[in-house]
Amino acid sequence: MSRETYWTDDPAELLRVREGFELSATDSHAHPGFDGDKHAGQAALAEGAGILADLQEQLFAMSRMGGDERRILLVLQAMDTAGKGGIVKHVMGSVDPQGVALAAFKKPTPEELEHDFLWRIRKQVPGAGMIGVFDRSHYEDVLIGRVRALASPEEIERRYGAINEFEAELAATGTTIIKVMLHISRDEQKARLTERLVRPDKHWKFNPGDVDERLLWNDYAAAYQAVFERTATTDAPWFVVPADRKWYARLAVQHLLIDALEAMRLDWPQADYDVAEQQARLAAS
Amino acid sequence: MSRETYWTDDPAELLRVREGFELSATDSHAHPGFDGDKHAGQAALAEGAGILADLQEQLFAMSRMGGDERRILLVLQAMDTAGKGGIVKHVMGSVDPQGVALAAFKKPTPEELEHDFLWRIRKQVPGAGMIGVFDRSHYEDVLIGRVRALASPEEIERRYGAINEFEAELAATGTTIIKVMLHISRDEQKARLTERLVRPDKHWKFNPGDVDERLLWNDYAAAYQAVFERTATTDAPWFVVPADRKWYARLAVQHLLIDALEAMRLDWPQADYDVAEQQARLAAS
Repeated sequence: MSRETYWTDDPAELLRVREGFELSATDSHAHPGFDGDKHAGQAALAEGAGILADLQEQLFAMSRMGGDERRILLVLQAMDTAGKGGIVKHVMGSVDPQGVALAAFKKPTPEELEHDFLWRIRKQVPGAGMIGVFDRSHYEDVLIGRVRALASPEEIERRYGAINEFEAELAATGTTIIKVMLHISRDEQKARLTERLVRPDKHWKFNPGDVDERLLWNDYAAAYQAVFERTATTDAPWFVVPADRKWYARLAVQHLLIDALEAMRLDWPQADYDVAEQQARLAAS
Repeated sequence: MSRETYWTDDPAELLRVREGFELSATDSHAHPGFDGDKHAGQAALAEGAGILADLQEQLFAMSRMGGDERRILLVLQAMDTAGKGGIVKHVMGSVDPQGVALAAFKKPTPEELEHDFLWRIRKQVPGAGMIGVFDRSHYEDVLIGRVRALASPEEIERRYGAINEFEAELAATGTTIIKVMLHISRDEQKARLTERLVRPDKHWKFNPGDVDERLLWNDYAAAYQAVFERTATTDAPWFVVPADRKWYARLAVQHLLIDALEAMRLDWPQADYDVAEQQARLAAS
């Protein structure tokens, strides 16, 4: 199985949130670990698509035969327009749909609000052999939850701990967790929202509430900073991916998935039946 | 939005099950409506992918803004190895994953068996704006259900009627139903199963039970024939797609989806907010 050849440095190392990380000091327009331009980035994405698809098939196969319980959970968080949908479409879109479990978390329903914030999340954790993708997640409960004071400060505090316990439990039961914040600048968001208002085929992607959230930009930045400080763990690391250039963000997230799958040292599973015996049965059928 | 140009006749018409249809008289190696070879078929599939993706985005958009309740349900049934997985990967794989809801129905669980056979099916019907895909379906309950006598003949009889009522109800509430049987020959299945036993990277796709079912080939053919006679309705037509050539089956199913979407006369939804007002708010933000 081939490997990626186009990185100058491993973006999984470059983008990982470490002690002392500061979102405000991070360049959303950069392309760490990749020297090429947009055209080169798109070619690399196409090359990586084949690598990712092959690895995903092995992950899936090992769960179906051999009982491998491992799975991946990709958590996507970002301000509006940062490109979560583009990641799903252009990165996950190159993987066999049968191996992908996508969960989009919108504003909680009244029923969901009657339960603990992790209740609806637990129902969507990926099964063995799957790559699960959370488009927004339990982190909304400490992001908009904090910015809009939807819960008390004490409850927000409690949630950081509950999240770390939840994720540690997932990791201990075979889930590789990759948490991604797509990082765009305030100016880039303005340009993207403007485009949605200019093009009639994009109007449906715009919501007046997007501007309301935008007005709280600095509060969200502080809430993300707190998330990184409280929930970047060894089991469940955060990666802040510069996303002003869509091609770079897609390539970087694709790499994070490839990197996680390669670390699993996958292979094709051994047959759990006698191959020669089945060949004879088949020949006679 | 462009249209397909590569059909000599509309396969939706050619493949539809009509009064007097006989599975046993149907050629699984044919390619009705398409004059080209495999290479041409693959090129056509790539062209159709763009058309399908554009139409799907409009379907999705109209549900998100404008409250359009319409959706599509593609039911895939076939003997093992006929290529259901390939349809999901190569036809649905070209569509934005956010707009696709895939449900694979395996052997029912004990909990599922405690309920009516449609109980687990109802939970998976696609939401507004989605293309739902059933990889196997409620038809298993009148196929293996009949062949293996998992239910009494009276119960099987009842199920045909229950299925027609269920599908009529879905159709009446905005679901375009496309039921596809991928039709392969017994020899082609043998070749494909043989390959799975020869290649170690395919061993995980083989199950000794596949040979058991293969030995009941004629019983399954009779059960499919009964399904077509009892459940091919105007609301929920069956299409028998020759599938000995994988490229043709994929191209034909892609067309059935494109055809259904074009019949919906989709467009981009009108903004449900004042565009100029939002532009002013955004400019000031």
